[in-house]
Amino acid sequence: MAMKAAKFLHFLFIWLLVCTVLLKSADCHRWKKKIPEPCKNLVLYFHDILYNGSNKHNATSAIVGAPKGANLTILTGNNHFGDVVVFDDPITLDNNLHSTPVGRAQGFYFYDMKNTFNSWLGFTFVLNSTNYKGTITFNGADPILTKYRDISVVGGTGDFLMARGIATISTDAYEGDVYFRLRVNITLYECY
Amino acid sequence: MAMKAAKFLHFLFIWLLVCTVLLKSADCHRWKKKIPEPCKNLVLYFHDILYNGSNKHNATSAIVGAPKGANLTILTGNNHFGDVVVFDDPITLDNNLHSTPVGRAQGFYFYDMKNTFNSWLGFTFVLNSTNYKGTITFNGADPILTKYRDISVVGGTGDFLMARGIATISTDAYEGDVYFRLRVNITLYECY
Amino acid sequence: MAMKAAKFLHFLFIWLLVCTVLLKSADCHRWKKKIPEPCKNLVLYFHDILYNGSNKHNATSAIVGAPKGANLTILTGNNHFGDVVVFDDPITLDNNLHSTPVGRAQGFYFYDMKNTFNSWLGFTFVLNSTNYKGTITFNGADPILTKYRDISVVGGTGDFLMARGIATISTDAYEGDVYFRLRVNITLYECY
Repeated sequence: MAMKAAKFLHFLFIWLLVCTVLLKSADCHRWKKKIPEPCKNLVLYFHDILYNGSNKHNATSAIVGAPKGANLTILTGNNHFGDVVVFDDPITLDNNLHSTPVGRAQGFYFYDMKNTFNSWLGFTFVLNSTNYKGTITFNGADPILTKYRDISVVGGTGDFLMARGIATISTDAYEGDVYFRLRVNITLYECY
Repeated sequence: MAMKAAKFLHFLFIWLLVCTVLLKSADCHRWKKKIPEPCKNLVLYFHDILYNGSNKHNATSAIVGAPKGANLTILTGNNHFGDVVVFDDPITLDNNLHSTPVGRAQGFYFYDMKNTFNSWLGFTFVLNSTNYKGTITFNGADPILTKYRDISVVGGTGDFLMARGIATISTDAYEGDVYFRLRVNITLYECY
Repeated sequence: MAMKAAKFLHFLFIWLLVCTVLLKSADCHRWKKKIPEPCKNLVLYFHDILYNGSNKHNATSAIVGAPKGANLTILTGNNHFGDVVVFDDPITLDNNLHSTPVGRAQGFYFYDMKNTFNSWLGFTFVLNSTNYKGTITFNGADPILTKYRDISVVGGTGDFLMARGIATISTDAYEGDVYFRLRVNITLYECY
């Protein structure tokens, strides 16, 4: 009798274990899954110096598209609405423009609202340091006047193969329409 | 003897259970996985009013790039080939432009074919209603003349953290080159 | 006594099995996961013929944005910095421009570096052959002068529903500023 009870308990225990695994497995899509633990966190800065007609040597970005009536050397007064900028900006580990870059932020952004500052970003961090070799690509809306705003990590290569997660962006500094520095706090939930 | 058989059956049973779990687990990439159950479905509309030189107050989008010979106030006659548009469009729950927006569709599209209407979209739904707070970002080719066309969900934030799935787009209405309304049927397969 | 030992071993064995499963499951995000086996590999070519003012009928792409001082028919001398191109290019199974296309590569690229050739790509393979029906969308930095460079697969539809992985791009041929052919070696790690 005790034997049977022990066997039953044993069986129950295994069953519970297996169920736990099943419920945690990736195919249980019927239920909202709990947010996984982040597997990587990186804080990086990048520095954008917009070409304004007189800073050719320092500039890291340039206006390449603009709406009717605007021009390609000065951002529009109308919340920069419609200005499209391509960039190749240095990435640093701290907030100093003159620190040794650990990579390049390459991509584009444009301003898309008439009545406030708002942009949309598509870019890639190309990292090439002793710590990391690979790329992380980002896409998303950037409501500039909000202190912290999240954009999506949409992919990655090398050390960041198939990265998934988000980046919390904040404007760390800006000087008129020529310079801005973004702090990018990257949280990845998938690391291979 | 019966004892041994029972033990063997017990073992077999556990083995089968564990195998089932293994085969369902996310690492079994040797086999094509079955399509998971959708975890979220959303149907939303967004409304694009293109600036045409005389609708400055109503317009929600503007041409910001165009090929040689084209201009920035009128879409090209050549299937709009080469026109690049940035937008910040209201999102509504139904097909009425005047319904209370539940968010904004922000991004860009361009026309990329000479011999038919075809576009490519990169944009983000920024949702900020009582039901949802967060963003969903989309990328993909949009063969406009096809009734239903699928684009990729490439990421998300907030309530849509790391969203994955597709959006089935259909042109719900259009008025000349100035207004169009897209119905976006979003199916997500990963929800956190 | 032997009975107890056997039971203990049995238990240990099950425990190890279950642990293995747990460690392999998709929620074990505390540890870097091993790279999964690829589930699909495709090698495709696409052919870009840039409009230069005199090849209207053959051209598959056109400059639609450029920085101050540049124009829309000739790529800038300055490593093409700031030129934005939209394209709708034929995809072939081999490196012959005149082979029957199996689909179209649709999207855009721009040149983003002043001191070397470097671009950024956002595009979709729209495949419509007997073998495959669906789309794969790519994003990423493209350091053109590197022989093999990886960009991210950010999504997919149809036969490539929610595709994830990378594409290794190499320049298979180019003729001045008018023609180039890219070899795209796509490796997918998620296939539904």
